[in-house]
Amino acid sequence: MASGTRHITVPAGFAAAGVACGIKRSGREDVAIIAAEKPVPCAVVTTRNQIVGAPVLWCRQVLPRGFGRMRAFVVNSGCSNVCTGARGRRDAEAMARLTARALGCRPQQVLVASTGVIGEPLPMAKVRRGIAEAAARLGRGDDAALRAIMTTDTREKSAVVQGRLAGRRVTVAGIAKGAGMIAPSMATMISVLTTDAAVAPAALGKALRGVAATTYNAVTIDSDTSTSDTVAVFASGAAGNAAVGPRSRAYATFAKMLHEVCWELSRALAADGEGATRLIEVAVRGARSDADARAAAKSVADSPLVKTAVHGCDPNWGRIAMAIGKSAAKVAPEKLTIRIGGTLVFARGSRRAFDRKALAKELGRPEVVITCDLGLGSGKFTALTCDLSRDYIAINADYHT
Amino acid sequence: MASGTRHITVPAGFAAAGVACGIKRSGREDVAIIAAEKPVPCAVVTTRNQIVGAPVLWCRQVLPRGFGRMRAFVVNSGCSNVCTGARGRRDAEAMARLTARALGCRPQQVLVASTGVIGEPLPMAKVRRGIAEAAARLGRGDDAALRAIMTTDTREKSAVVQGRLAGRRVTVAGIAKGAGMIAPSMATMISVLTTDAAVAPAALGKALRGVAATTYNAVTIDSDTSTSDTVAVFASGAAGNAAVGPRSRAYATFAKMLHEVCWELSRALAADGEGATRLIEVAVRGARSDADARAAAKSVADSPLVKTAVHGCDPNWGRIAMAIGKSAAKVAPEKLTIRIGGTLVFARGSRRAFDRKALAKELGRPEVVITCDLGLGSGKFTALTCDLSRDYIAINADYHT
Repeated sequence: MASGTRHITVPAGFAAAGVACGIKRSGREDVAIIAAEKPVPCAVVTTRNQIVGAPVLWCRQVLPRGFGRMRAFVVNSGCSNVCTGARGRRDAEAMARLTARALGCRPQQVLVASTGVIGEPLPMAKVRRGIAEAAARLGRGDDAALRAIMTTDTREKSAVVQGRLAGRRVTVAGIAKGAGMIAPSMATMISVLTTDAAVAPAALGKALRGVAATTYNAVTIDSDTSTSDTVAVFASGAAGNAAVGPRSRAYATFAKMLHEVCWELSRALAADGEGATRLIEVAVRGARSDADARAAAKSVADSPLVKTAVHGCDPNWGRIAMAIGKSAAKVAPEKLTIRIGGTLVFARGSRRAFDRKALAKELGRPEVVITCDLGLGSGKFTALTCDLSRDYIAINADYHT
Repeated sequence: MASGTRHITVPAGFAAAGVACGIKRSGREDVAIIAAEKPVPCAVVTTRNQIVGAPVLWCRQVLPRGFGRMRAFVVNSGCSNVCTGARGRRDAEAMARLTARALGCRPQQVLVASTGVIGEPLPMAKVRRGIAEAAARLGRGDDAALRAIMTTDTREKSAVVQGRLAGRRVTVAGIAKGAGMIAPSMATMISVLTTDAAVAPAALGKALRGVAATTYNAVTIDSDTSTSDTVAVFASGAAGNAAVGPRSRAYATFAKMLHEVCWELSRALAADGEGATRLIEVAVRGARSDADARAAAKSVADSPLVKTAVHGCDPNWGRIAMAIGKSAAKVAPEKLTIRIGGTLVFARGSRRAFDRKALAKELGRPEVVITCDLGLGSGKFTALTCDLSRDYIAINADYHT
């Protein structure tokens, strides 16, 4: 997305800013604040890794149920504040306190996220200056905020969706940074979403959990899970609709819009995975359950052999069958069907004749779809990943901490 | 191991042969028979992938409990006979029948394994000739048999261990082929073990299952699991010891010898993984249970980020902590200790000061040991893997099926 565009402040009631305070050696933006005009309904979902950064612990402390009313999100890049002990916990809390002081709210109303190298303490003098400056500049600094959460991402990732909710025009917007950017010790995925829809905190929490499961948690770059993954959504209510409750009729409409934004950002995350040249969508259906479909889809999307085959434009269905077979999902080879793009390559236990050259060409396109029907039920799940290239090795082996 | 050496026929009572019948385009050996002089106690362990080759189905059919009395093992390389439907099942049975006819035993006394490309039918005219010729040449063809099970392995892998069992001198020997050789659609790991020890079938089955769990099943090259993995052990009894029962005093001694051979072969498999330049041993201890230790060790050994860090000689403990944290094992960061080689790099939630240059140098050695103490119990497990290099991508992306 071109510089100067707006996204997270398109929904009314939000301001954003991003500044460079010197954490990143490159001199690029590294501290961002996204703030609502007042405390608003907010939900957060964090990593499932057992080793988590101090900012994740802070988010869980201030929002133990995953939702509530919050004022702002403060983020830095360049240092993830992971594995930094008691000092790290004090630093995360200080980031909330400094932001709260500048905005005139309580520290407990500020979410914190950090992304970057693991194991280094935050340079708090710089962070302090950065937060003060970002708070002073709060406005339509959407792109500066977006750049401030990036690490080794090669593209800026934002999405805006508009629609009608309970008779009002509402907007859901979001930004995200690097799921492939786990490299060099990067503690990775961060996404901030804003909406002007009025949504009750519990409904927002329910929607974000549900949507994250099929979007951000459907992305796998290298099967590794970062210690910092955090996605938060704020709902200003400026659209003036009747507040969406978790069992209201409008809930499904809102969840669908939220899904649309998160799905677009997730696809962008996968497509920008480290060393990626292609986005791969692995759609599994016909599984005994959605959980089975998820296990099978993730197994294919995580398989280095499948990912290298796609990179090499090789329609190697044997590797796809292998990856499904090794998963925890129930599989019966004689019921299994595999399609690469629109081409049937394997059905009911045997290969099918196909035009190898045409399929190799199809595998060279920027987006590749692998569809596997397990033929055992109605469970379905789509995983997102990218191909595995020499550049992944270069990025991850040649860089030194 | 140099050509002309003996290994699997060192234990008395066995003969081996390997011949080239034209399945491999290279013209190298591609059919092997390893035979006992008469039906002898035998055990087999096969892959846990749900999609398995026809030979695996045959082995499970003739040895439903995983042990019994068998006469021979027939193996081909170049074609794995996986995903080949009813024809594949007929072909696997035909391999057993042809071998049995040549040896004068029942087809049900012959184990079958195939390794190579997935999805292609076996060229049975060639296989038929190969089996006839191999049966005619049975003798001390150890190395020819070993070459005949290899696919893209870069090194021959054999091991011989001798010791005393119940007052007799006994030998356990084995050969193995490629755990990294899952590429290009290769259906992979095959190992054949022989011993002159007298061991009851049930004891042999118990010993092989137990040993496989901590040796072959501790190896991970790329987290993918082949559809053909098969390991079999034959016990001729020629050493004349009192037969080892599953609860006899000699059982532990025998199991230890078997473990020694399988561990050596497993280390060779990991060190020869695709694109590997280094063997990595991930030793986890202090876990709540052995199962937890296994989950944590496998998670580290499977992590592309850890494997690329080792490849780049980067003592990146943050990635090791991340990989432990994302595993199913219970982990408490404040009790976790990580050592790279002999150097403590992380203890109780924080990094430790270490000489980065010295450690980078240590990571450049052919064998790297990562030790993680979870500090929660007495569970332990050691996983074996290799570094992840550009050559892995080259081998798996550039080769076309």
